[in-house]
Amino acid sequence: MVQISRPTLLLDRKKCLANIDRIVSKANKSDVVLRPHFKTHQSHEIGRWFRDRGVEKCTVSSLHMAEYFAEDGWDDITVAFPVNHHEIEVINRLASKITLNILIASIESVPLIQSGLKHNVNAFLDIDTGYHRTGFAPDNVKEIDEAVQLIDRSPVMRFAGFLSHAGHTYKCRSQKEIKSIHQEEMEIMFGLENKYRSAFKDLIMSVGDTPSASVLDRFEGMTEIRPGNLVFYDLVQERIGSCTKDQIALAMACPVVAVYPERNEAIIYGGGVHFSKDSMTIDDRTSFGEVVEKTDKGWSTSSTGSYLKSLSQEHGIVHVPENNLKVGDVVLVLPVHACLTADAMGSYTTLEGEKVARLASPV
Amino acid sequence: MVQISRPTLLLDRKKCLANIDRIVSKANKSDVVLRPHFKTHQSHEIGRWFRDRGVEKCTVSSLHMAEYFAEDGWDDITVAFPVNHHEIEVINRLASKITLNILIASIESVPLIQSGLKHNVNAFLDIDTGYHRTGFAPDNVKEIDEAVQLIDRSPVMRFAGFLSHAGHTYKCRSQKEIKSIHQEEMEIMFGLENKYRSAFKDLIMSVGDTPSASVLDRFEGMTEIRPGNLVFYDLVQERIGSCTKDQIALAMACPVVAVYPERNEAIIYGGGVHFSKDSMTIDDRTSFGEVVEKTDKGWSTSSTGSYLKSLSQEHGIVHVPENNLKVGDVVLVLPVHACLTADAMGSYTTLEGEKVARLASPV
Repeated sequence: MVQISRPTLLLDRKKCLANIDRIVSKANKSDVVLRPHFKTHQSHEIGRWFRDRGVEKCTVSSLHMAEYFAEDGWDDITVAFPVNHHEIEVINRLASKITLNILIASIESVPLIQSGLKHNVNAFLDIDTGYHRTGFAPDNVKEIDEAVQLIDRSPVMRFAGFLSHAGHTYKCRSQKEIKSIHQEEMEIMFGLENKYRSAFKDLIMSVGDTPSASVLDRFEGMTEIRPGNLVFYDLVQERIGSCTKDQIALAMACPVVAVYPERNEAIIYGGGVHFSKDSMTIDDRTSFGEVVEKTDKGWSTSSTGSYLKSLSQEHGIVHVPENNLKVGDVVLVLPVHACLTADAMGSYTTLEGEKVARLASPV
Repeated sequence: MVQISRPTLLLDRKKCLANIDRIVSKANKSDVVLRPHFKTHQSHEIGRWFRDRGVEKCTVSSLHMAEYFAEDGWDDITVAFPVNHHEIEVINRLASKITLNILIASIESVPLIQSGLKHNVNAFLDIDTGYHRTGFAPDNVKEIDEAVQLIDRSPVMRFAGFLSHAGHTYKCRSQKEIKSIHQEEMEIMFGLENKYRSAFKDLIMSVGDTPSASVLDRFEGMTEIRPGNLVFYDLVQERIGSCTKDQIALAMACPVVAVYPERNEAIIYGGGVHFSKDSMTIDDRTSFGEVVEKTDKGWSTSSTGSYLKSLSQEHGIVHVPENNLKVGDVVLVLPVHACLTADAMGSYTTLEGEKVARLASPV
């Protein structure tokens, strides 16, 4: 096992590759384009693991990420975040070099972005299929049609299709619930496709959450899928039913720096700035991560009963029912939300001890 | 006002300097050493604002920060985090150059750290005055005495004194409650001082939370205080009663990228990776930040009624009762927890548009 001196985000490369292989194979079987969301890993190297398996397109959630992946040769990128015309310079820079797909989530964005565009972009309309974060309400037929026409008349925007993110699957607790949400999403998307397919023959229908991409075997009818989290998975996904604990490819390694057996607690070097403050509540206990057992080859996921009960900036408080931790031990913690944990850390370290670089926060 | 294209952490330099001036003046009046906690700002430049006002010592929460501030000439640094012997190389590197003060939070740490030390360090005992995160229980007289003797017998460690962090003041909702917790802390610390002062005449008694440092006028009896958050303040501190809203020196500027008046919501570019996921609950509503009004010179803190109700990775959902936001607007949001928000961002931007650099996450 790698030598650990401070909080270190371990990446089990084999599990990660198996997660990638599984979705690549499923997408191929359904003849759907896999355009994975790279906001989860934000790493050139991990992006290449997808490319090595035939993936040619990707999704990101900021222009900063789009520039980073364009540098590594990705030439067809969707920014699945409502277009922000204040960043028109970056948009033009990218659009001059690659196929850039932007997202229109409010009709007001169309003229704003249109007025500054100097290069061709593809524009998707964001459809709210029930998550209620962003997008056009599917029954707002008038506004959807108006937006499609506005884009279609633009000399620099091409109407590319409809995009949705069924983020409400994150509230599911069974595969049945996930499938039911996916079914509703499909009905909405099919309705739009039926209406616009004749006018736009290359229409792309793009859907994307990890729970649906994980529990469904086939993705008939859609043009592309954009799951992100499944590259790593995490405890939230395990609870939803998207993965098993054994498929989670990340664990944070943290030194134990103090022990308080009288209250069944150990303090680790690992806090909110490492894990993020996302938590989950199970049986009235709030957890910021679950302690798993170290093995020679990585970690075993049989329960240790220990979990991260509280986080401050650099400290983590671990509940240790067995009081079996001592100062100087290194514990491994499965993350609650892999995307935010990975974003908080500067790099990954594989179980073989290799560093895997990732995009740094903008300065 | 500065031109904003993406989430930008604005720093009102005047408010920040006033916060610094206030605590410097209070510390001087009480003849107590101000050793501010620099984990909040993690910036050479802001550190210098303290130094310009006579502050010569600082506190940090990681060795990574200690190295960063040592580079800028800080030569007496306390790492107020349980010492981690896995980082002995960094400890030795620092201890060879500056006065390094380490923290012993478990007796097991003493021999572990002792065995690798090559240069002199000062060691504080961490006393748990009621927060129950780290430190020796004050009634565990036997173990405290054993630890003091172990340190005293070490050829490379000098017993420096007792250190506490009354983090439970964060749960207070009035100055009276804060003062009562501070009083209990003082009684514990005075007890230890009485016992050990004769044997250790340079004994340092170090206390440190922002709420106490803010509401108390004088700090008689202690040797030093280590408040950190008060350099910026935030909504949590305002609720505790440590500051007024006008004293909060940070606001995140975020472009509005979509509006949904039918549900009184606007979507901003600004999510968990910018604000952190720390939230506060007031009157059954959970808030991740409060929208304030932009002015020519910065922001006014009269309430807009709008607040950040939810965050995902890059999106923020703002509740907008008046539906007075449109796509393209830039909103300013006061942070719930300044330390974590600042840590998530790569730099500060003053209201005059100057960048203020800060330490990047370790890679």
